[in-house]
Amino acid sequence: MKYPPIYYSDYLGLDKVLNAQDLKSKEYGKEAHEETLFIITHQAYELWFKQILHEIKSVNVLISENPVNPNSLGIINHRLNRIVQIQKVLNEQLTIMETMSSSEFMEFRDYLVPASGFQSVQFRKIEIMLGLKQKYRLGIDKQFFNARLREEDKKDLLALEEEPTLLENIEKWLERMPFGTSKKYDFWNEYQNAINSMLQSDKEVIENNQTLHPKEKEFELNNLDSTKKSFDILFDDESYKKLYQNNEFRLSQNAKLAAIFIQLFRHEPIFQAPYRLLTCLVDIDELFSTWRYRHAIMVHRMLGTKIGTGGSSGHEYLKKSTENNRVFKDFFDLATFLIPNSYVPELPASIKKHLGFSFKSSD
Amino acid sequence: MKYPPIYYSDYLGLDKVLNAQDLKSKEYGKEAHEETLFIITHQAYELWFKQILHEIKSVNVLISENPVNPNSLGIINHRLNRIVQIQKVLNEQLTIMETMSSSEFMEFRDYLVPASGFQSVQFRKIEIMLGLKQKYRLGIDKQFFNARLREEDKKDLLALEEEPTLLENIEKWLERMPFGTSKKYDFWNEYQNAINSMLQSDKEVIENNQTLHPKEKEFELNNLDSTKKSFDILFDDESYKKLYQNNEFRLSQNAKLAAIFIQLFRHEPIFQAPYRLLTCLVDIDELFSTWRYRHAIMVHRMLGTKIGTGGSSGHEYLKKSTENNRVFKDFFDLATFLIPNSYVPELPASIKKHLGFSFKSSD
Amino acid sequence: MKYPPIYYSDYLGLDKVLNAQDLKSKEYGKEAHEETLFIITHQAYELWFKQILHEIKSVNVLISENPVNPNSLGIINHRLNRIVQIQKVLNEQLTIMETMSSSEFMEFRDYLVPASGFQSVQFRKIEIMLGLKQKYRLGIDKQFFNARLREEDKKDLLALEEEPTLLENIEKWLERMPFGTSKKYDFWNEYQNAINSMLQSDKEVIENNQTLHPKEKEFELNNLDSTKKSFDILFDDESYKKLYQNNEFRLSQNAKLAAIFIQLFRHEPIFQAPYRLLTCLVDIDELFSTWRYRHAIMVHRMLGTKIGTGGSSGHEYLKKSTENNRVFKDFFDLATFLIPNSYVPELPASIKKHLGFSFKSSD
Amino acid sequence: MKYPPIYYSDYLGLDKVLNAQDLKSKEYGKEAHEETLFIITHQAYELWFKQILHEIKSVNVLISENPVNPNSLGIINHRLNRIVQIQKVLNEQLTIMETMSSSEFMEFRDYLVPASGFQSVQFRKIEIMLGLKQKYRLGIDKQFFNARLREEDKKDLLALEEEPTLLENIEKWLERMPFGTSKKYDFWNEYQNAINSMLQSDKEVIENNQTLHPKEKEFELNNLDSTKKSFDILFDDESYKKLYQNNEFRLSQNAKLAAIFIQLFRHEPIFQAPYRLLTCLVDIDELFSTWRYRHAIMVHRMLGTKIGTGGSSGHEYLKKSTENNRVFKDFFDLATFLIPNSYVPELPASIKKHLGFSFKSSD
Repeated sequence: MKYPPIYYSDYLGLDKVLNAQDLKSKEYGKEAHEETLFIITHQAYELWFKQILHEIKSVNVLISENPVNPNSLGIINHRLNRIVQIQKVLNEQLTIMETMSSSEFMEFRDYLVPASGFQSVQFRKIEIMLGLKQKYRLGIDKQFFNARLREEDKKDLLALEEEPTLLENIEKWLERMPFGTSKKYDFWNEYQNAINSMLQSDKEVIENNQTLHPKEKEFELNNLDSTKKSFDILFDDESYKKLYQNNEFRLSQNAKLAAIFIQLFRHEPIFQAPYRLLTCLVDIDELFSTWRYRHAIMVHRMLGTKIGTGGSSGHEYLKKSTENNRVFKDFFDLATFLIPNSYVPELPASIKKHLGFSFKSSD
Repeated sequence: MKYPPIYYSDYLGLDKVLNAQDLKSKEYGKEAHEETLFIITHQAYELWFKQILHEIKSVNVLISENPVNPNSLGIINHRLNRIVQIQKVLNEQLTIMETMSSSEFMEFRDYLVPASGFQSVQFRKIEIMLGLKQKYRLGIDKQFFNARLREEDKKDLLALEEEPTLLENIEKWLERMPFGTSKKYDFWNEYQNAINSMLQSDKEVIENNQTLHPKEKEFELNNLDSTKKSFDILFDDESYKKLYQNNEFRLSQNAKLAAIFIQLFRHEPIFQAPYRLLTCLVDIDELFSTWRYRHAIMVHRMLGTKIGTGGSSGHEYLKKSTENNRVFKDFFDLATFLIPNSYVPELPASIKKHLGFSFKSSD
Repeated sequence: MKYPPIYYSDYLGLDKVLNAQDLKSKEYGKEAHEETLFIITHQAYELWFKQILHEIKSVNVLISENPVNPNSLGIINHRLNRIVQIQKVLNEQLTIMETMSSSEFMEFRDYLVPASGFQSVQFRKIEIMLGLKQKYRLGIDKQFFNARLREEDKKDLLALEEEPTLLENIEKWLERMPFGTSKKYDFWNEYQNAINSMLQSDKEVIENNQTLHPKEKEFELNNLDSTKKSFDILFDDESYKKLYQNNEFRLSQNAKLAAIFIQLFRHEPIFQAPYRLLTCLVDIDELFSTWRYRHAIMVHRMLGTKIGTGGSSGHEYLKKSTENNRVFKDFFDLATFLIPNSYVPELPASIKKHLGFSFKSSD
Repeated sequence: MKYPPIYYSDYLGLDKVLNAQDLKSKEYGKEAHEETLFIITHQAYELWFKQILHEIKSVNVLISENPVNPNSLGIINHRLNRIVQIQKVLNEQLTIMETMSSSEFMEFRDYLVPASGFQSVQFRKIEIMLGLKQKYRLGIDKQFFNARLREEDKKDLLALEEEPTLLENIEKWLERMPFGTSKKYDFWNEYQNAINSMLQSDKEVIENNQTLHPKEKEFELNNLDSTKKSFDILFDDESYKKLYQNNEFRLSQNAKLAAIFIQLFRHEPIFQAPYRLLTCLVDIDELFSTWRYRHAIMVHRMLGTKIGTGGSSGHEYLKKSTENNRVFKDFFDLATFLIPNSYVPELPASIKKHLGFSFKSSD
């Protein structure tokens, strides 16, 4: 015991935390049993939001170094994985909230107007820090800065809009990745050749298949065609740029190619951590989407087709934003550009030697 | 031991179950490590689908009796709750599937064409038996009978389309509920009066509120108006009927009123089990929706924007059907028609005495 | 908007909740990244403990009325089920905590001495209010009142020891249940006869079974014998009392018989809610046990065989208390006393008519 | 479509899988509704067991190579993590099983004698392949080979006992790890010095602490002493060997030291994957323990204190084996031997340079 003794409840600030449940129903009328649940569940959300922000902030510092310290990647994955575990609990907390019936909610709902979850500053910060800047938001969602927020919170959020996001930092980090193209070697040229021979062989098989109904044949050939088009865009600087500028792609061409390279060679020691990092981003996106979706369903369950306390159009809006607000969609789309292992060009030894550890078991 | 001794593996038919994993990758090329996972996960789904069908069938028998045996309601809830617990596992199984990367899937995906989860006869049966008849399906989804199914399966599914569904059985059961309206007493008349005086009082408050900005005032009054319209439709036989015939409502007016009555008086002994039953339906709907949504996300993750093995347009289609295929949406919408307890008209003693047990503690 | 407008962050007291994370590592040395996680996770636990206490308190009020209002049983089950859902989240929160490695914990652990989770007053209150009074605790656990707690907390806990617990209230409620025995009818007499004829028939089958090895025969007969003994104790007032007084049984004989009766006739309308209530108690016990078990494992993982900050002997102690602190074990043991349906004596009409609703569909 | 078209139900062998549910209750008496659940749940377990075996087998191949291919470590972690995800579902499946009440189980339980989960050959294989050889089992558990198993299964299991287990393969892999000790450098010598100076400084602080009650002082000093003893054993070849030979330690001294080294330098690129591997083993152990514990609780719930169908003494036995059958306990114990970062000796540059990638960003 080298430090002054502390006590559990002091250390955890329980005097604050456990005295922050002031029931409006008690203030204005008859205590509604479920208001405690309503408050505590939201507070638990806010606590976890604080933790998520703590992790994103630290990851943003580490990933924006140039170059990123190789030791940092393990730490980054460790912390992103922590966010994933927290998100699983966030999703489960909805099940707790749903033990409140809509009749029970109605006993205190009127007192809360115009407070609304849309005013959660921390959740907005998470969205922005991950990458959901205003330009990507739906109309109705764009103006939350003008919502009933404290002035200092508005300022904070507007300042955050100017900071690089996790998505942007990841993009820069990917763009800096060597290996794909060098003066001596262009992997992507070979990759395009591989794709073309794969598509050509597929086409021949379809055309020569006697058992296929002409309609099926047409369908299959159209499929091949649309696959080809996806690849064409990937490798055409101009087309890609246009889609990037329209916000249809959120990763630059070079960043996307680097991400594909990582996927293709994910077992190489130097790519094991980057591959996990990309997988974590996909998990985080999926879990926030699922949370948004389930949240929309819960609001539907609680309010039916009524308008929410914050004046939002409720569950319909939430469902729309579920899909729109996905930040790391480009990493889901990577699958579009992968080809079976047997077609992937082998890397030359001059590149391959850079992908391992400096230590060799013969050392 | 009164019966011939049996052995664990014989009892469970493990010779069949554990020898039903035939890898196509082994047959046509190099064994793909993850194909085992792909097969086993789908088989686990099908096993649970069989269990869900077992429960729905039994519930359909019990709920379609006229009158339903009061002892049955406990059993029905017990079995619906079992479906809910199974659904939670179905959702978690997606997380297992997602441990297969899209590159790993690509190692055997071509061998599977044109097999597709869309051909799961059991899942189609679950959908139909719950209430998703063809008329409610999206265009693309309507013709799955014409998909590559065995003739006997097609026949089974078409026959099932003619059977009463769980939704229809529940509707009939609700329609038969007494209490709401009788010769002597019309609860709904009083409920409408209550609604009107509630809305009137809300209106006055808004109009007299000096602190409200005119725009806010307008917004609030519009809100009130749309609430009023919802109630008007509920009580207007003609308007209701039209929406019912257009499939916008899936419960008849009388069934919906009975469901509202159950919600309002859910603590009365006679309504405790019916209320749980309605809650189970909402849970089941929510969990299948969540499963469909997460399934769509998983397909996106695995295939990017490629076309699925069954020729389906993949995750975009799945997302659309997520919302459309919700069978018990009307039970979510009930919240629209609830009012705070303090406004709910009291039941006359002549009705109230029917809602308890025959046994009184003074007996 | 009838009430003064409130804002999300004010309503939720976020100024308090989100400013209650004071890192000791920052105060005494270098900020340890994971200390935030450690504090927030514990705070989330305490918030949920507050909610659980809120529910137990309200259930204790409702279940201790004499007679219990039949409307209350639905509410009681609703709230016990909410505790169950919260417990599932409590268990999942351990997975979050485990994203902190033991090396990371070591960066701030020394600053916390002698604070310890054993000093959570709310958790102690939950234990006591459920039924874990001092007399049932293990030696080491008995003296936590003397632990480093604030004086007012000690007083609160000692006062709570004098209050009726949930277990005691349930016991009283069960003891008051009619039906089992009345002047005209003794169900338990018939039940004992049924048991005897079942055991007799089993015995004959075993003795006449030519295929059984003598050792197996002996084993089976011993089994039957021990089953018989369990039943003998159940029906022998004296033996039962002794075990009850030794705290081996925590339910009185009459309460236990009533619980068995509820299980046997759980489908009767009047027993549907009581049966669910007993099931909820079993669920709650199971989930707290699982939490205690997983908590012990987590401590093992974090500290190895070191002593905990509060001076406790760590995970070994936690494992012992896991089994000892199970409050509703008697409800698990009920299974011992059930017999197959076909053996259960039918109730006479004079009893049976009391188990349904006053309303008959012919009314 | 290059391959013969296949159909969903043929590909998945659904004719076998969905026709393997033969109800004994139907054969011998009246169909028991819940027997379907009982069979299907067990079959789902067996399917997942097959998948887990598939993963363990492949990991055993990769980890037993000498040297292990650095590319393999990513694959190994990927597959171990898959086992973890499956285990989470295995735990959740218990919740499904528990929707069967003990009364419902009793309707068909007698038909199953003497079948028992103890006869699951696949589960035994998992246990053995992870590392639970006969010598580590509890008495009652040692003889399951003599249980009612098919001859070929017995042979398989006995043969498996002779194969190297995952634990043994990991041990060998750890023992081969360089870095800790070389001719030029002995890290462990420095680590012992660091420990000694840490313990000495702790001792002085305690002895000079005037505010400590003599009893507390004694307690703290005893604590220090027992910590010292743990470290002494770790570094004393003779004492360590004895405990290893008594099966109290399941990792050799060199393997344990290598594991500690990995933990201490887990952020170095070359240790990121090994560290994850150790974490996965801990997770697997924790999840099987939790499963065993919850399984014991479920049996208690279903049978009370009755004897299981297989003749086992039921839940009491299961609880004992929960703790005993933990295979990777030594990796939990590692925490005992860690010290705060600030005390950990720095590695010399000659070692450190071996821990990174061959590629430097300046290349």
